[in-house]
Amino acid sequence: MDRVLTNLNMVTMHPENGYQLINNAMIGIQDGKIMFADCAGIHDLHGHPDVIDCHGALATPGFIDCHTHLIFAGNRANEFEQRLNGVPYETIAKAGGGILSTVNATRNASEDELYELALPRLEGLKRDGVTTVEVKSGYGLTLKDELKMLRVARQLGNQPDIKVSATLLAAHALPPEFANNGDGYIDLICQEIIPAAAEQKLADSVDVFCEGIGFSPEQCQRVFTAAKAHNLKIKGHTEQLSNLGGSAMAARMGATSVDHIEYLDSEGVAALAACNTVATLLPGAFYFLRETQQPPVDHLRRLNVPIAIASDFNPGTSPIASLRTMMNMGCTLLRLTPEECLRGVTVNAAQALGLQEMRGQIRVGMEADLALWNLETPAELSYRLGVPDLIARIVDGHLFPANGGNHDH
Amino acid sequence: MDRVLTNLNMVTMHPENGYQLINNAMIGIQDGKIMFADCAGIHDLHGHPDVIDCHGALATPGFIDCHTHLIFAGNRANEFEQRLNGVPYETIAKAGGGILSTVNATRNASEDELYELALPRLEGLKRDGVTTVEVKSGYGLTLKDELKMLRVARQLGNQPDIKVSATLLAAHALPPEFANNGDGYIDLICQEIIPAAAEQKLADSVDVFCEGIGFSPEQCQRVFTAAKAHNLKIKGHTEQLSNLGGSAMAARMGATSVDHIEYLDSEGVAALAACNTVATLLPGAFYFLRETQQPPVDHLRRLNVPIAIASDFNPGTSPIASLRTMMNMGCTLLRLTPEECLRGVTVNAAQALGLQEMRGQIRVGMEADLALWNLETPAELSYRLGVPDLIARIVDGHLFPANGGNHDH
Ligand SMILES: [Zn+2]
Ligand SMILES: [Zn+2]
Repeated sequence: MDRVLTNLNMVTMHPENGYQLINNAMIGIQDGKIMFADCAGIHDLHGHPDVIDCHGALATPGFIDCHTHLIFAGNRANEFEQRLNGVPYETIAKAGGGILSTVNATRNASEDELYELALPRLEGLKRDGVTTVEVKSGYGLTLKDELKMLRVARQLGNQPDIKVSATLLAAHALPPEFANNGDGYIDLICQEIIPAAAEQKLADSVDVFCEGIGFSPEQCQRVFTAAKAHNLKIKGHTEQLSNLGGSAMAARMGATSVDHIEYLDSEGVAALAACNTVATLLPGAFYFLRETQQPPVDHLRRLNVPIAIASDFNPGTSPIASLRTMMNMGCTLLRLTPEECLRGVTVNAAQALGLQEMRGQIRVGMEADLALWNLETPAELSYRLGVPDLIARIVDGHLFPANGGNHDH
Repeated sequence: MDRVLTNLNMVTMHPENGYQLINNAMIGIQDGKIMFADCAGIHDLHGHPDVIDCHGALATPGFIDCHTHLIFAGNRANEFEQRLNGVPYETIAKAGGGILSTVNATRNASEDELYELALPRLEGLKRDGVTTVEVKSGYGLTLKDELKMLRVARQLGNQPDIKVSATLLAAHALPPEFANNGDGYIDLICQEIIPAAAEQKLADSVDVFCEGIGFSPEQCQRVFTAAKAHNLKIKGHTEQLSNLGGSAMAARMGATSVDHIEYLDSEGVAALAACNTVATLLPGAFYFLRETQQPPVDHLRRLNVPIAIASDFNPGTSPIASLRTMMNMGCTLLRLTPEECLRGVTVNAAQALGLQEMRGQIRVGMEADLALWNLETPAELSYRLGVPDLIARIVDGHLFPANGGNHDH
């Protein structure tokens, strides 16, 4: 045993219902894996060289932010300000604003610049206990620039205290070079971008924006088919603004998750349930866009569809690098329970990334990714915001104190 | 000159409109006061012993959170969780939940315990650039316990990196000892609690909860009269849930601010304008309670009523220790502009506390309380959340880096 943490209030977040709170628990870690996670007294620690008394800290699985657009250049705060000052969206778009301003800035940025820009955003997520983050491309929209973004994602994951799941989202928006030629851009994605990303092992998953202002279900299906041919996992931005049936299509093709889904109908919910696809809710975009269409939470619950929660961190619709803010908004705006929100950033978020066998729970054999909190109850994780409650994150058994100070690397 | 900060993008937040952004600015500090704040080149720094190059950081006045209930014991996360699990409010109240659970826990807590509980909450606010915080009593509701809370507020203000404005809010709720005897409790407040708090110099202001479920305008007026007789400033929680005319009454009596004011009518807005009373909006409570009644922002603007923004940090209706979250919610939910939100946590927040002559702006002669940010534009302060943008706070000219590390004390 490399390390034993004692005196924990531990919530294992096993897939059964309930927090499975174990008071006065201990966790044993060896070779970066959880070797035991039990009540105190079960294991004899006599003479063990590395026992850490956690003084009653709350222990959760390390948080997983399973949907972010963390990498981009440019600054859309001025656009935000203009809109609040009454400038119409059309005026802003004509002046080069909107997503294409982010695309232009990202294309013009070097890999190093993108990395440096992403780092403080990632620090924000780490402050909330995140140990795994999904990062999408999607602001390059050329072969070169999409791969550039994915290389930055991989580089972010080279840090010892964070794990990155990289997602190719070339089908995010139609690049100006393909105006009125969506199918031509889909050809490029399927024939060049996906094969290159797969060959260079730069992507774990492939994502699409299935929407009237994005790509049609048929186009998205082509992207998924190409992705699966290259052994990449698939997922989708679906039913955010309208009900096109993209979620059901994605689920039937084996998507790990469908994300947003405010407009998902009963048939769509049934498809998710039948295919064990995760429904990822993105309360930050719901809040920022002042959406009033509620995702079908009750129906998802009734059919036991796993619900994940993610930040959707991005410059246009969710500039909020805080997973705990998402949990609070999940409760306050979407009426999820604190337990559902905690599942949403642990066990179900792991499933949304296809990582449920190795992360997202405190369970023997899983990777020793944990978060330790100065909190009495797990409900507080969703309830209070802004207080620096995180004591430390543990990644592959290595300790990273929240103050950013020394760690054991 | 004790210290000069150079290479700043400075927003002075003088009371005129606009950020008054000065690029490449420098700020000179002596004896804790701002001695100059100008474009580079105006002052000769040759041979100056303490010049700090701020590398283009954005400089704002130190943020002022002008409305918090930071001091309390007990934990209401479980109540939050119960309500999301469908338990009716009445059931929770009958089981001892609601504000009286906080009152009981606070009465049972020692001064030291309350201090220790408040510290991490205050750390959260500091992370958002706060250098002055208003802290209310109101969970004691006895002479002894209200003074205890105020002593904790004073003790919090003894830290070198934060200034505390203490507010007596004995008229927060009717204590069980005075059930059905509101006037009797008001007698106690006017005849014993206010005089004692004034004599012991424990309060700067006196606040009331003017509401059907709180105290009537007539009762609040009695409290204000007693406060003024003891030379204390006055302010009120008014028009949050209904329109009782408390704001206009408070304004006419000279209140520095009236707070919440979702239900303020035209007559009330006119009274604020006539009396130069600050309208303090509390987006956290608006959000947390899922309020749909919008405060009269357009009307306040038209009559040039100064608008402040505050966290209202409290365990029942706004457990969010983040002033930047409030700024974002001010924009997103209340449709304020980023500039209005920044005014709301600087110059107008100072006025809400009656401190406008000494804090809230970058202005010669004012206290050298500043916040330095790793941001390009002031709009970003309201736009993005969760990213650790704060570089340092400066309080009375002393530097406190955001990482909590070394400072010059
Ligand atoms: Zn997204
Ligand atoms: Zn309040």
